[in-house]
Amino acid sequence: MKSSKWYAEPTSENEVILHLLKEVIYNGRSPFQKIEVIETGNYGKCLFLDGILQSAETDEFIYHEALVHPAMLLCEDPKRVFIGGGGEGATVREVVRYPVSEIVMVDLDEEVVRVCREFLPEWSNGAFDDPRVKVVYADARNYLSDAKEKFDVIILDLTHLVEGGPARLLYTEEFYRIVYNALTEKGVMVTQFYSLGISYLQLFASLVTTVNQVFSCVKPYVASIPSFFAPWGFVLAAKSTLLDEHSHKFQDRLAKVEKGLKFYDLDSHRSMFYLPKHIKEALVKGGDIIRDKGF
Amino acid sequence: MKSSKWYAEPTSENEVILHLLKEVIYNGRSPFQKIEVIETGNYGKCLFLDGILQSAETDEFIYHEALVHPAMLLCEDPKRVFIGGGGEGATVREVVRYPVSEIVMVDLDEEVVRVCREFLPEWSNGAFDDPRVKVVYADARNYLSDAKEKFDVIILDLTHLVEGGPARLLYTEEFYRIVYNALTEKGVMVTQFYSLGISYLQLFASLVTTVNQVFSCVKPYVASIPSFFAPWGFVLAAKSTLLDEHSHKFQDRLAKVEKGLKFYDLDSHRSMFYLPKHIKEALVKGGDIIRDKGF
Amino acid sequence: MKSSKWYAEPTSENEVILHLLKEVIYNGRSPFQKIEVIETGNYGKCLFLDGILQSAETDEFIYHEALVHPAMLLCEDPKRVFIGGGGEGATVREVVRYPVSEIVMVDLDEEVVRVCREFLPEWSNGAFDDPRVKVVYADARNYLSDAKEKFDVIILDLTHLVEGGPARLLYTEEFYRIVYNALTEKGVMVTQFYSLGISYLQLFASLVTTVNQVFSCVKPYVASIPSFFAPWGFVLAAKSTLLDEHSHKFQDRLAKVEKGLKFYDLDSHRSMFYLPKHIKEALVKGGDIIRDKGF
Amino acid sequence: MKSSKWYAEPTSENEVILHLLKEVIYNGRSPFQKIEVIETGNYGKCLFLDGILQSAETDEFIYHEALVHPAMLLCEDPKRVFIGGGGEGATVREVVRYPVSEIVMVDLDEEVVRVCREFLPEWSNGAFDDPRVKVVYADARNYLSDAKEKFDVIILDLTHLVEGGPARLLYTEEFYRIVYNALTEKGVMVTQFYSLGISYLQLFASLVTTVNQVFSCVKPYVASIPSFFAPWGFVLAAKSTLLDEHSHKFQDRLAKVEKGLKFYDLDSHRSMFYLPKHIKEALVKGGDIIRDKGF
Repeated sequence: MKSSKWYAEPTSENEVILHLLKEVIYNGRSPFQKIEVIETGNYGKCLFLDGILQSAETDEFIYHEALVHPAMLLCEDPKRVFIGGGGEGATVREVVRYPVSEIVMVDLDEEVVRVCREFLPEWSNGAFDDPRVKVVYADARNYLSDAKEKFDVIILDLTHLVEGGPARLLYTEEFYRIVYNALTEKGVMVTQFYSLGISYLQLFASLVTTVNQVFSCVKPYVASIPSFFAPWGFVLAAKSTLLDEHSHKFQDRLAKVEKGLKFYDLDSHRSMFYLPKHIKEALVKGGDIIRDKGF
Repeated sequence: MKSSKWYAEPTSENEVILHLLKEVIYNGRSPFQKIEVIETGNYGKCLFLDGILQSAETDEFIYHEALVHPAMLLCEDPKRVFIGGGGEGATVREVVRYPVSEIVMVDLDEEVVRVCREFLPEWSNGAFDDPRVKVVYADARNYLSDAKEKFDVIILDLTHLVEGGPARLLYTEEFYRIVYNALTEKGVMVTQFYSLGISYLQLFASLVTTVNQVFSCVKPYVASIPSFFAPWGFVLAAKSTLLDEHSHKFQDRLAKVEKGLKFYDLDSHRSMFYLPKHIKEALVKGGDIIRDKGF
Repeated sequence: MKSSKWYAEPTSENEVILHLLKEVIYNGRSPFQKIEVIETGNYGKCLFLDGILQSAETDEFIYHEALVHPAMLLCEDPKRVFIGGGGEGATVREVVRYPVSEIVMVDLDEEVVRVCREFLPEWSNGAFDDPRVKVVYADARNYLSDAKEKFDVIILDLTHLVEGGPARLLYTEEFYRIVYNALTEKGVMVTQFYSLGISYLQLFASLVTTVNQVFSCVKPYVASIPSFFAPWGFVLAAKSTLLDEHSHKFQDRLAKVEKGLKFYDLDSHRSMFYLPKHIKEALVKGGDIIRDKGF
Repeated sequence: MKSSKWYAEPTSENEVILHLLKEVIYNGRSPFQKIEVIETGNYGKCLFLDGILQSAETDEFIYHEALVHPAMLLCEDPKRVFIGGGGEGATVREVVRYPVSEIVMVDLDEEVVRVCREFLPEWSNGAFDDPRVKVVYADARNYLSDAKEKFDVIILDLTHLVEGGPARLLYTEEFYRIVYNALTEKGVMVTQFYSLGISYLQLFASLVTTVNQVFSCVKPYVASIPSFFAPWGFVLAAKSTLLDEHSHKFQDRLAKVEKGLKFYDLDSHRSMFYLPKHIKEALVKGGDIIRDKGF
């Protein structure tokens, strides 16, 4: 082993990823979390919050396109979009591609947004300057509870569901009722989940079971993001129905945004929604409902 | 950090995975490589060759089913099957599910087979005792060059293509000509590749370009294997045509083996063959042909 | 970095030693602690308790000779010796070199003694079979409190003083009063401490201040033990006076044991007791008294 | 384990120290080596050359005082002093305490000196501005070969003797003959060595045997430097005789510099020169002579 600087990311009690650390670009602490921008050997510039990788320069496009485009395209005619979290600005960057009228992004941590705009400007790529975008620094749950006007799409780009973690209350049945109420009749919501490594399938099943308590149409999906070291789970849900991806409408709307995209196209869409047998079986069995108090 | 034992797997110059080491089950060295069976915290029992993870108890089923079943099912009526490598016995375990007449497995390293049969018996699950299975300890390339009888399916379950690595000559244009000649007219071959992390896409494109020099029908595909920490590439190729997965024939044959499978089904098949946009674009650009001498 | 197995020993919040792990010789858990015998690359067979290195094959002789011989030789005519801890058996191995009448070793953890006798037999080297040695599995503090017959030398070979650690109550003023009362009029006690790295000098000063509350003659000393990665502190104390190392008596008695020793001789003795300026200055300033309740 | 940044220092094939990395203060490369100034968790600011720790803020005083003062005080009346290496400026800082007439420091790497003066100014503490100090950027061996005027003290503050390392030719018999010839009749030289961990004793014995080929009076000694994780070896040698540390002259001269020192005093001096038994025995056996060609 040659001497070197490493960034140690413990992805579980049983595993640590050592990223070659080429440069510490930013290193600070907000009232909510430790914020670091690190140049790594394999993934270019990376944002770490409390030591967990959030986005990597080389492949954040996979994560953000996988999060945003299914919901935006399966929703028939989105005008008002809500983003919970999303501090890097890459989620909003994907949403501004659409002819929506308003995008409200609610992130707890102003400092994350400031750091990303300064040190990772390609992430938001100017989207924060779009006049349709409104950024609010607040708790997303409180904001949605109190929201007077409804949203067509709600995108939840949160830190991971970990027992006791800060975003835990944004993955509960009670929270999804708030989301449901904040959506228009044809509204669609999507949330990121976490690794679908074998040991996390049970928790994914719990999340899908939980969303199922509230929404009539629930579609879990998977995308593989190299810098996250795992197949990655998402859950999309609609109050009523979704556009069919075979429909002209879906494909016409896709054609209008597809040129700028790097990961997402119709093949990617299909690949993500065809789930492997072992994941389907875990979802059929289901899991405990995640509630505000204990789970 | 609590004190603990770790198995350090350097997956590149820029990255090391530390696996929690629960037990060293076997630790030895054959004439060809270092062989270790390690109980890890996240993936149960794991086989490492020269320090690189080959198969993990928790999810080897994904890798082996993804490797074997597309080739076996897309080939119309396979009778004779060749496996190059495959020492753990899990590839042969998947092949014996089919009504084939003969399976020849050629692995360089007898010691790997012995260690896996003793310490990882669930991997082969008795398949080595199947009378149709013949195991030869030899160089797969030499064996195929000299083979008199042709094969319907050739499955290449090798250590990774790394410049200078022992299996490098099993990923070259010259080798694929040998494979081509060893196949029957409707024959199908498949090889595993490596991670499709962004920095490996160029090498994957080279491999696909290389196979394209020899085969008329080439289908790259991807499966996500959690313990390999990445989307994983495969290349399948046919001398003439492949069965269509929408055909009754394909689906009937799948129905006969599907019950025992954990990962592979029609959804998984489709998901694997729909490639994301950035991978397709890398493949369209292509890469240098991999030849025996330099590349 | 080549792939490899490592034993990670966190020596503080700020530092981890990775020992090349050649073999896990024993791995278990007693009611009191995790017990591991590991063959490392640099130090041969090593005993780890709760993940902290206790003794290493290559240089345990330095630690154990440095712990035992100053106290045994500076005490005028020791007959009864008490060892607190000492589970490896190497401390008792050093004591049986002397013409004493009785050696009582009190260790909490029978399992440590059993594991060391089985896997590290060179450590005790048969000393447990000496008829003068009596081993008791109990709390050393309780044992000394209740002891009817007094001891000439008390050797404290304990796990480290760490706030909240299991041996903490064997480093307090209250405990040293028990030790004092359990010693004969010319009695001598010695305890190991920990690293004298710059950041631990203050705690060492506290320990010396604490022993000074009870004993009239206190002599801290230092030996450098490579596998402990630091200069190592000890504190020796006498109820009344000590033999002078220039005396014939001291040197005669040393001559009788010296032949079997590897580290300790008159030069080593002198080297250990001449303290560097910065350590003396830290001791002159002193530290807070360590008491049973808080410190 | 909490997420964190670590600096990995491989101290041998069998061992890696992970230092908590608080800040990368400087990171560059000279024509000769990689130069890094890192703020670590345990040792404050540290200079690493080619990944190996050279000096640490918390305890560089031990290393530099141990290197300089024995030679300066055991030499009867030093006027001209040569320093080979010493780029940090801490060796020259210790030498300027004496009433010498000239100090010539010859370091290969101007960049190291520049970086240390900028980022570690406390190391040299203004000594480079002393009019008696002359800094030359050249090969120390060539410089000494060609030197016309002789030196009273030659201090070799080099990177470690490692087979094939850049400083290897500054530890050979041929080099020590050059040193010998460059010294005045009462001249004294000292060189740092490396860890005296058990596995390095044989190499230390080789070095002492080598110096013994050239000098009549050779005194190896040891100091324990916490951030170097080991007892550390030095070799001092004189062309004729040395002052006795019991002499008034030695003690008077010590009294004049002692006030500013943190580690070195008469006790430290004695402690360093009384060698433990196992080190003396290794030295008595001796080792192979280190020559320019092979050893």
